[in-house]
Amino acid sequence: MLHLKSETGQRWLEQVEKNTDEVLIDHAHCEKKAAGTALNLMFAYIEDEELCREMTSIVNEELEHFHMVREILKQRGIEFRRLKPSTYGSQLHELIRSGEPQRAVDRLLIAGLIEARSCERFGQLRKHLPDAQLRDFYDSLFESEARHHAVYVRLAKHYAPESEVMARLDELATAEAAIIATGDENARMHS
Amino acid sequence: MLHLKSETGQRWLEQVEKNTDEVLIDHAHCEKKAAGTALNLMFAYIEDEELCREMTSIVNEELEHFHMVREILKQRGIEFRRLKPSTYGSQLHELIRSGEPQRAVDRLLIAGLIEARSCERFGQLRKHLPDAQLRDFYDSLFESEARHHAVYVRLAKHYAPESEVMARLDELATAEAAIIATGDENARMHS
Ligand SMILES: [Fe+2]
Ligand SMILES: [Fe+2]
Ligand SMILES: [Fe+2]
Ligand SMILES: [Fe+2]
Repeated sequence: MLHLKSETGQRWLEQVEKNTDEVLIDHAHCEKKAAGTALNLMFAYIEDEELCREMTSIVNEELEHFHMVREILKQRGIEFRRLKPSTYGSQLHELIRSGEPQRAVDRLLIAGLIEARSCERFGQLRKHLPDAQLRDFYDSLFESEARHHAVYVRLAKHYAPESEVMARLDELATAEAAIIATGDENARMHS
Repeated sequence: MLHLKSETGQRWLEQVEKNTDEVLIDHAHCEKKAAGTALNLMFAYIEDEELCREMTSIVNEELEHFHMVREILKQRGIEFRRLKPSTYGSQLHELIRSGEPQRAVDRLLIAGLIEARSCERFGQLRKHLPDAQLRDFYDSLFESEARHHAVYVRLAKHYAPESEVMARLDELATAEAAIIATGDENARMHS
């Protein structure tokens, strides 16, 4: 249950097939950013014990994913380098309301939606990529990103009643679907 | 081999004995900050594979330490709360030179000196604290902070020749000893 309002279509899959190496590099950066997001949330809501425990697991897992992608890059002789990120993350972050506890709810739900979209796209890649090693790799990551999504949505309920959280998730998921539909001229995990 | 220019004396031990609960809370915050420092260094020098691997281990270990301290606070009924940090870290950070690769050398060496001082102080606590559980706890952390110190000093040599790194470490250790000698009116791990 990923709470997304759209499914990734042919446009993105074609972008990835034409620029697989670049998307792999971007994927490594995304895993790193996912670890950073979890650690920042832990710092911001350090009194929340369950959140601290869950963020610790997510940091560990995202860093592990980062190293897995780096290893694949290495095996393929693709040089890891800095890349202009897609505008997806920054567009989503503009939607975060100021003032607590709304800010906590939004930060957690947006982190959760990014996990959901990654998960959904890994699902596309494990089905449609021509390269069998990569299909298996994305299959192996699918479940943990789905779990991260669920964790973030659950933690948001520490900061608002369930009905409010689910209504806000619906709003943010609608915005997310619009952002992802626009895409990005650079081939990225979230273009 | 911690490369420190001074040994912690009676003044700090007395401060800790009078304010043990507050120092424990500060200790939890220090572990969290140590994880943040390692992740920031990984982000800043992401092309450096050995650094990325070592920072990943340090992030995981510091977060584990954070949860260990939280557990001790809980057992003792001490409420975890935000605390004004000691000025130790910010004073050290002012010494970081701008421009690469000097900035990398300084960031790594300062992270290494903070680990060294934590280690040295854990060594004092495991000897002198009246509380046996806490003595054992600090004994259990001693070795990993010593290892972190060695890792940071080794990684600094990726960014300058060994002789330069060791000369700069000598300079920074002298500054560190002066900062720690001044102390801090609040009882903290680095007061
Ligand atoms: Fe991941
Ligand atoms: Fe994830
Ligand atoms: Fe530690
Ligand atoms: Fe450490």
